[in-house]
Amino acid sequence: MFTADLNCDMGESYGPYTLGSDKQLIPFISSANIACGYHAGDPQIMEETVKLAIDNQVKIGAHPGFPDLNGFGRRFLQVTPKQAYQMVIYQIGALSGFVHAAKASLSHVKPHGALYNIAAQDKEIARAIAQAIADYNPDLTLYGLANSELTKAGERIGLKVAHEVFADRTYQDDGSLTPRDQPHALLPDEQSAVIQVIDMLKTGTVATVQGARIPIKADTICIHGDSPYAAAFVRRIHQRFAEEGIHLNKNNS
Amino acid sequence: MFTADLNCDMGESYGPYTLGSDKQLIPFISSANIACGYHAGDPQIMEETVKLAIDNQVKIGAHPGFPDLNGFGRRFLQVTPKQAYQMVIYQIGALSGFVHAAKASLSHVKPHGALYNIAAQDKEIARAIAQAIADYNPDLTLYGLANSELTKAGERIGLKVAHEVFADRTYQDDGSLTPRDQPHALLPDEQSAVIQVIDMLKTGTVATVQGARIPIKADTICIHGDSPYAAAFVRRIHQRFAEEGIHLNKNNS
Amino acid sequence: MFTADLNCDMGESYGPYTLGSDKQLIPFISSANIACGYHAGDPQIMEETVKLAIDNQVKIGAHPGFPDLNGFGRRFLQVTPKQAYQMVIYQIGALSGFVHAAKASLSHVKPHGALYNIAAQDKEIARAIAQAIADYNPDLTLYGLANSELTKAGERIGLKVAHEVFADRTYQDDGSLTPRDQPHALLPDEQSAVIQVIDMLKTGTVATVQGARIPIKADTICIHGDSPYAAAFVRRIHQRFAEEGIHLNKNNS
Amino acid sequence: MFTADLNCDMGESYGPYTLGSDKQLIPFISSANIACGYHAGDPQIMEETVKLAIDNQVKIGAHPGFPDLNGFGRRFLQVTPKQAYQMVIYQIGALSGFVHAAKASLSHVKPHGALYNIAAQDKEIARAIAQAIADYNPDLTLYGLANSELTKAGERIGLKVAHEVFADRTYQDDGSLTPRDQPHALLPDEQSAVIQVIDMLKTGTVATVQGARIPIKADTICIHGDSPYAAAFVRRIHQRFAEEGIHLNKNNS
Repeated sequence: MFTADLNCDMGESYGPYTLGSDKQLIPFISSANIACGYHAGDPQIMEETVKLAIDNQVKIGAHPGFPDLNGFGRRFLQVTPKQAYQMVIYQIGALSGFVHAAKASLSHVKPHGALYNIAAQDKEIARAIAQAIADYNPDLTLYGLANSELTKAGERIGLKVAHEVFADRTYQDDGSLTPRDQPHALLPDEQSAVIQVIDMLKTGTVATVQGARIPIKADTICIHGDSPYAAAFVRRIHQRFAEEGIHLNKNNS
Repeated sequence: MFTADLNCDMGESYGPYTLGSDKQLIPFISSANIACGYHAGDPQIMEETVKLAIDNQVKIGAHPGFPDLNGFGRRFLQVTPKQAYQMVIYQIGALSGFVHAAKASLSHVKPHGALYNIAAQDKEIARAIAQAIADYNPDLTLYGLANSELTKAGERIGLKVAHEVFADRTYQDDGSLTPRDQPHALLPDEQSAVIQVIDMLKTGTVATVQGARIPIKADTICIHGDSPYAAAFVRRIHQRFAEEGIHLNKNNS
Repeated sequence: MFTADLNCDMGESYGPYTLGSDKQLIPFISSANIACGYHAGDPQIMEETVKLAIDNQVKIGAHPGFPDLNGFGRRFLQVTPKQAYQMVIYQIGALSGFVHAAKASLSHVKPHGALYNIAAQDKEIARAIAQAIADYNPDLTLYGLANSELTKAGERIGLKVAHEVFADRTYQDDGSLTPRDQPHALLPDEQSAVIQVIDMLKTGTVATVQGARIPIKADTICIHGDSPYAAAFVRRIHQRFAEEGIHLNKNNS
Repeated sequence: MFTADLNCDMGESYGPYTLGSDKQLIPFISSANIACGYHAGDPQIMEETVKLAIDNQVKIGAHPGFPDLNGFGRRFLQVTPKQAYQMVIYQIGALSGFVHAAKASLSHVKPHGALYNIAAQDKEIARAIAQAIADYNPDLTLYGLANSELTKAGERIGLKVAHEVFADRTYQDDGSLTPRDQPHALLPDEQSAVIQVIDMLKTGTVATVQGARIPIKADTICIHGDSPYAAAFVRRIHQRFAEEGIHLNKNNS
């Protein structure tokens, strides 16, 4: 039997502002990465999103980012590894406050945006983030870009690691994502994305833009919640999983 | 044998800015209330202050405040009880991140500044804060103004409660502090403050400005760390405790 | 001939978050109150909203609020009059940066949310805000709640003052708005609101909930841009103005 | 006769936190670069620092930085040129609020920290900042690292430009500063710094670490106000200027 984890960033609203379609998406995913008040989210949103995840038997993850609400954590900020460590501890702790208060458990940590990207490339930042997770709670799972410095750092330190793949992105022969500024970075349509996901899960490989087929660990699949088509897509992939007998790894499983 | 708890707000520096004399004061106190990044403090300061407290066998408390760094949490902000609950959960959680990472334990929670003051008077805010602490961890101790709505809310909910007194402030016949805008709100000198503290601890009573003597629970004594005389004062009180055989309730005790 | 000013809060988006329907509403109003980065807005939104106002010949106003993005400036923050003065100067200046860069002129200042409300009641805060506007540029017009401490403070100091009325709120015999927690605080429907506006403009009076008719200065009419019906309402009132021969005081007039 | 401009960053305190020795330094300098609330400073500090500059006949400059109070604007943040433009306009405007309210004039703009550094190297960011200044007020002077992309961008756009040199840093044969991580980046002592400043002003050249002598434009000399020796140093240089007949370009000159 095949199993899969669909993860989605959630709780990215703030004060008077609403972003994403958390309530529409959450029945169809298995892991929620919840913003912790740095790049998005606030105490009210965090509490509500933790409850939403619990009610939907979805695994709760912390989604720490750079302290840049205005840039939504998508702008690189030049922090030291120690600063990265400290800001990740702070954010995991803050989210855990709501998780503890709701008598639930934290399952994983996935860095957000520019912090995710720099952690995929920078060994020292990657190590600092993995260390922060291990120091906070060594039973947490680190979600990071498949085959990146971040997943390597997590494995080296002995953390459980979930290699993340993207439904709608294409891959290069070396296993990296085709950069967004190059042609064919994105799959042409939703159907291709669904096919790629099923393919990765069932074969453990992916077809590259160069035409080869390479092994890929698809421990968790990222669903972009901020697209207007997100709800339709996640419903469709959910439906195809049912048809293919692929089991979604929810919190009850 | 008499015992006493001396508490002091700590970790109130921020980024490039230094405030307080944490390293000078900490050897002489038993409880540190550590700022959580809302009214002061940042992830680096929080990590360092938690380590400082551990090294000095001082009990670690969360010191949540209003989200108002510019006003240092001293300006009242009109939040709902639910918002007070959520901002306290967030801040306890964030500080706990560093406490967990250091394999230490959180001991108590003391609200800061305007949040402390409103919680002393407003039943609903008091209840929300007590509930936040109980929901996060019912073994934590709530530090609040002696005989205030906050300590009452904590007792009602079944929390351990530490009634806080002030060394340098005077008391009214009804047990309240003499408001700062009235004459004799402050004791005239350091020696009087030391005498009042010893008196409260040994007799369980305090002399009021009206000349009476009333019972007072002096579970914990607040030391103001931002005064230039703080270090001298705390050293002196520490010395007098030794002479009087009053034992300081440190984390090792 | 009758003239009218329709004002609307604008530029209240922030970073990745969108709020309001500025582009839909702006063709039908004459004054835009643009958020200045404290309760909402950021440099990008401010620049774009200033340009939008210029393109639509709408008067540009600064819309300073409390520094509380999370609470959208709707929560009272206990500032001193001096702090109110300084935060208004800061925000008028910041918005003026974009106005100067676009070679346009600032026309007015309208405080936002809780700052607007406290300024309507608190003489000292009202005076501080009026003074800030006068010190920055005595040719600016102060928009404030009709017959409030704020409009009085502006008049006392010699500022041009626009008494603001609300299309959808009802009035008491003493000229105050019916508080929102009382019955009949809001007019029952859109048509009643349009009728009340036309009535106020043409007669200089308004019918109170007690059944009397009192004089009212309707120098400017507030349109709430955050309602989903805002666009329909403003179009309707615009249409009725045309039928009644009421001229909208735009920037070209 | 020789003239000189001594500039110093000022107004970098925040809320309860004090930084620098503005009052001690300001009698001895001619230009104050005042923080605008992004990397440091707040409305109260800005108002007070503007007044301090006026009282000491010191030219008032805006000192915009990255929106990173916690990192004091010293951490690079990956902004687009458009975002750099907008954040500079915002900050110049905000400071100008206090300058207008005090009936004074803004003289110059000097970017802070990481924004200063990236503007010295990145053509597009440099151009955006120069354009922001020109669009706000083309009569302002741009202060930037001598012979950098920033001063070039300012000259290209027609702004008055002040090439900035550092008293305590050494120079390479190509006119660049010796990077801080290399030996001899700093002059060995205060006396050498004073000698270098006088030398640069009188000869228009500087001795390089390689032993050559190259031309240098020393339109303005940066005094670091955050060093504990800053006050002594600035007094000394002031004294030497008097002995050498070098006139300080204050606001009254």
